[in-house]
Amino acid sequence: MYHYAAGVPRWPRPLGFYSLTLLLLFSVFARAADEPLPSWQGSARQAVMDFVQRATTQGSADFISPADRVAVFDNDGTLWSEQPLYFQAFFALDRLQKLAPDHPEWKNTEPYASMLQGKLSDALKADEHAVLRVVAEMHAGMTATEFSAEVAQWLATAKHPVSGRLYTEMVYQPMLELLVYLRQNHFKTYIVSGGGIDFLRVFSQQVYGIPPEQVVGSSLKAKYVVQDGVPQIIKLAELNFVDDKEGKPVGIHQHIGKRPVFAAGNSDGDFQMLEWTTSGEGLRFGLLVHHDDKKREYAYDRDSSIGTLARGLDEAQQRGWSVVSMKKEWKTIYPSN
Amino acid sequence: MYHYAAGVPRWPRPLGFYSLTLLLLFSVFARAADEPLPSWQGSARQAVMDFVQRATTQGSADFISPADRVAVFDNDGTLWSEQPLYFQAFFALDRLQKLAPDHPEWKNTEPYASMLQGKLSDALKADEHAVLRVVAEMHAGMTATEFSAEVAQWLATAKHPVSGRLYTEMVYQPMLELLVYLRQNHFKTYIVSGGGIDFLRVFSQQVYGIPPEQVVGSSLKAKYVVQDGVPQIIKLAELNFVDDKEGKPVGIHQHIGKRPVFAAGNSDGDFQMLEWTTSGEGLRFGLLVHHDDKKREYAYDRDSSIGTLARGLDEAQQRGWSVVSMKKEWKTIYPSN
Repeated sequence: MYHYAAGVPRWPRPLGFYSLTLLLLFSVFARAADEPLPSWQGSARQAVMDFVQRATTQGSADFISPADRVAVFDNDGTLWSEQPLYFQAFFALDRLQKLAPDHPEWKNTEPYASMLQGKLSDALKADEHAVLRVVAEMHAGMTATEFSAEVAQWLATAKHPVSGRLYTEMVYQPMLELLVYLRQNHFKTYIVSGGGIDFLRVFSQQVYGIPPEQVVGSSLKAKYVVQDGVPQIIKLAELNFVDDKEGKPVGIHQHIGKRPVFAAGNSDGDFQMLEWTTSGEGLRFGLLVHHDDKKREYAYDRDSSIGTLARGLDEAQQRGWSVVSMKKEWKTIYPSN
Repeated sequence: MYHYAAGVPRWPRPLGFYSLTLLLLFSVFARAADEPLPSWQGSARQAVMDFVQRATTQGSADFISPADRVAVFDNDGTLWSEQPLYFQAFFALDRLQKLAPDHPEWKNTEPYASMLQGKLSDALKADEHAVLRVVAEMHAGMTATEFSAEVAQWLATAKHPVSGRLYTEMVYQPMLELLVYLRQNHFKTYIVSGGGIDFLRVFSQQVYGIPPEQVVGSSLKAKYVVQDGVPQIIKLAELNFVDDKEGKPVGIHQHIGKRPVFAAGNSDGDFQMLEWTTSGEGLRFGLLVHHDDKKREYAYDRDSSIGTLARGLDEAQQRGWSVVSMKKEWKTIYPSN
């Protein structure tokens, strides 16, 4: 039994009233659902939509066949935040702390000592390769399965030191919408990141809707062994591939074997990927995310130690790349919970 | 105007006659189209069909979600022939002949001399690494685009020394049917080959329906450079990855990031790939193609210098792998033209 408060319209009303209401409601919802990139506003949004329109119009000179609709995305600073450190660095530092009790000698050995004190920037400045060696060393000997489980557990619990959010809650809502929009238009979306491929693959499907096989990243060498009758992939301490700067087009070539038609990044580490993508023949799109929102995220570009964007800003216009201002063109930064 | 020979049925006939004929014809064609793996007969065919049935039955304990339906195929000897030499070796030898006039010193230098005389087996026996170095060296400095064009031209014209067919006409009809059958059941089909990834990608889509991004293979290192303003991927002389034996599960891990549920091979170079695939949890399938058809293809296994199959034959039964006899279980070997 229903109780109606006074003033609330009651049955019966002419049928037309309800039909009209339903129709209006339906058209509002339909419009909201149809309208792509709802968290975007401004010229970058328009440019993306024009590109997709032209790429998918049969018979148009700019038509791109679905098989060639390859879209590549940087991760750190493009799909999720990267300040005050790459999130994977927090994972590595947490793991170092976890292992430290068994290694008292680390307190007096660099770069361990600085890293344990949270002075990663100092350690990187002093000897970047030594830091990379330590990170590799910490995972060496783990099976791929153990590593994935460790990452999954960390992502489920570790909180960002400033926002207090889970790291996977610091993905950009507008970029999630862009990924969906491109996939709806039959683009195959890939991550092409300087981050670790095995790290990214733990959450790429759930967070971005990008399956493991569409993730390209940096990697350690690995070997296949049968231990006590059980086949395993073991991670080695030796660096296999660095998927950054000039490495990104190479990673794309080795993994995908096709030249993308759409590339999105945010730093000069993505410059070559955008250059490679947009200098191909036919319709192409290059997008740079500009971190200019100090209030809702971070503001940095030319002088940042992480995610430096200088050459990209200087050359975007002449190269026809879109630069999206997070402050002015993104209505939301992170998804609401 | 049509002329009918005497004895050919003519209009008019009762309408029912034509309806019945059409109906019968339709049911025959419908059955043929529905029946999977038409060039197969025997127990391997039945085992594949049982596997697919169980893997795709919703609610079954053996159900495999579409995202996990990863099927990997060796190429040489599994999807196309590999005798008397891997087909890519013929490509390399042809290229060596083409370059030889500019290198008179090769006549007196090993392994060039043996290779130019067509004695590749001798050269391999004497120094396998030297042969690999020569092959790498021949492609070093080429752009990826130039290399693909060279392979495409070679495939369009070069003929197999024994059969006189184009190499791409020496793919196995039953395996083409298997690829289609698996894809119809939402398996994602991959090539995982010891052959060169850039070589395979030139024809994988057209010949096997497998796009470049689903090809895993051996590779040279590459670099990205901008030459006279034009971005290029350049192949280097340094070996990047050997996708054979223990390398196959590693290549699968690095490229796909998922453990396959179906693997097909033909030699002990595929042993670890089948082992890795079939030792995972849940329903799995391992298939070995047995070259026992001297008349229609080649007969070889334990003592062959190419495509040796010994451990696989010894252990197939205990591991639950299917071994398909080309002679007894394949009605056709190559597609009819």
